[in-house]
Amino acid sequence: MNYQTLVQNIESKKSLLCVGLDSDIQKIPTHLLKSDDPIFEFNKQIIDATASKTIAYKPNLAFYESLGLAGWKSLEKTMHYLNERYPEIFTIADAKRGDIGNTSKMYAKAFFENMNFDAVTVAPYMGKDSVSPFLEYDNKWVIILALTSNIGAYDFQTTKSDSAQYLFEQVLEKSSTWGTKENTMYVVGATKAEMLTDVRKIVPNHFLLVPGIGAQGGSLEDVLKFGSNADKGLIINSSRGIIYADSSESFADSARKEATEVQIQMSKFF
Amino acid sequence: MNYQTLVQNIESKKSLLCVGLDSDIQKIPTHLLKSDDPIFEFNKQIIDATASKTIAYKPNLAFYESLGLAGWKSLEKTMHYLNERYPEIFTIADAKRGDIGNTSKMYAKAFFENMNFDAVTVAPYMGKDSVSPFLEYDNKWVIILALTSNIGAYDFQTTKSDSAQYLFEQVLEKSSTWGTKENTMYVVGATKAEMLTDVRKIVPNHFLLVPGIGAQGGSLEDVLKFGSNADKGLIINSSRGIIYADSSESFADSARKEATEVQIQMSKFF
Repeated sequence: MNYQTLVQNIESKKSLLCVGLDSDIQKIPTHLLKSDDPIFEFNKQIIDATASKTIAYKPNLAFYESLGLAGWKSLEKTMHYLNERYPEIFTIADAKRGDIGNTSKMYAKAFFENMNFDAVTVAPYMGKDSVSPFLEYDNKWVIILALTSNIGAYDFQTTKSDSAQYLFEQVLEKSSTWGTKENTMYVVGATKAEMLTDVRKIVPNHFLLVPGIGAQGGSLEDVLKFGSNADKGLIINSSRGIIYADSSESFADSARKEATEVQIQMSKFF
Repeated sequence: MNYQTLVQNIESKKSLLCVGLDSDIQKIPTHLLKSDDPIFEFNKQIIDATASKTIAYKPNLAFYESLGLAGWKSLEKTMHYLNERYPEIFTIADAKRGDIGNTSKMYAKAFFENMNFDAVTVAPYMGKDSVSPFLEYDNKWVIILALTSNIGAYDFQTTKSDSAQYLFEQVLEKSSTWGTKENTMYVVGATKAEMLTDVRKIVPNHFLLVPGIGAQGGSLEDVLKFGSNADKGLIINSSRGIIYADSSESFADSARKEATEVQIQMSKFF
């Protein structure tokens, strides 16, 4: 998906919502366990219930890998369903990959070619040649970890370098020269909303993927206030708050209600 | 596998060699493409040919994921074969994972529980809570990226912080307090062998996983000279130099010869 289409989808839906498909076999409603592929069945119903309020879906790879072959199959089916049924919705492989060039190239193939994701999250620790292979695809995106939503973000990301910059600022500054705002986004946690102003000084025009509202406690209002730009420039993720709103047979309805509520909050900023 | 067993295996084989299973369907001998599972067949023959000279195997996850379901199946079969046939050989999932706690926990399940790897490589960018879930397993290991073998290592890993430490030194110092030398190792590239002295000042007793000899150009002699400690403390990886030594039907023999040659070089340091 290209930049313009993403912006148009956001404008037409008045939504910045990304639903995180952290689909956990231990947490999905138990009546689904009878189906052939409970994780796919769960995803399908969540997707159908929330698609009209959502501009992106973000399967979290770990949850699929933890189920081995069956999990990988559920993920492929989910992506096939999304690509067929909702081609206008942006898809993110939340994989936090990154390795030497010849290896990152293989990850790019896995996510962009085989499963047709629009974007993949990547850790910046190994530098430019670990990210570049993801930038060689037209209309595909790399989403680089900058300032993450977890407590461990303070271990290294917020240590200052000799240039008086925090590590996450260095990452933003340097990596924003590797690609453009048309193929690069950044992860900035909603739990660090007050630092979005600093982020925007370095990357005013790039999209930010913002996890951490909902279960992790970040404020939607602060994210919108400090993080948005002229094109909005935000994809705001909620996972557990939406997909596990309810563990009964009416889970999809509850997810719809939660997604609608979040979208209504977001629409006030349009 | 625990620390003592690993040290004993190294002493008895007089080897520090890890063979990297970067098994690429485009590069394996073409006669294997007729078999049901070419990647597993390739791995099996490489393993049988090199096991007596080898103390560890390291499948590179990207190469399996790039083949989708079939690749995941080849990986599971390879791990099953290693666990059954060569339980004394250390196994590393070269996955470069790392995410918020509840997600890293899922990756730990995938690699330690489902596939019974001894170790998994992890990127440190997200800090302590992204690494801790891997440390909760007895006799399992986390291998944290410190100073990688690629050119991109100079983008962030070697920038200095306000404490006048390089980022990779900060990573070593801080993360070595999260676990112990009995469950934590570090990736340090052979292409940065001259910096192994600095690494050893901070983590004198931890094992180091050293990629970058062979195709990437690092020197085995320098790695041994600057990196070893009383227990040797090194697992030295070669991937392409061994597994793609020859693309004919005699590829396994050639791999055996290469592995033997590397092990003979290593044995001089025992």
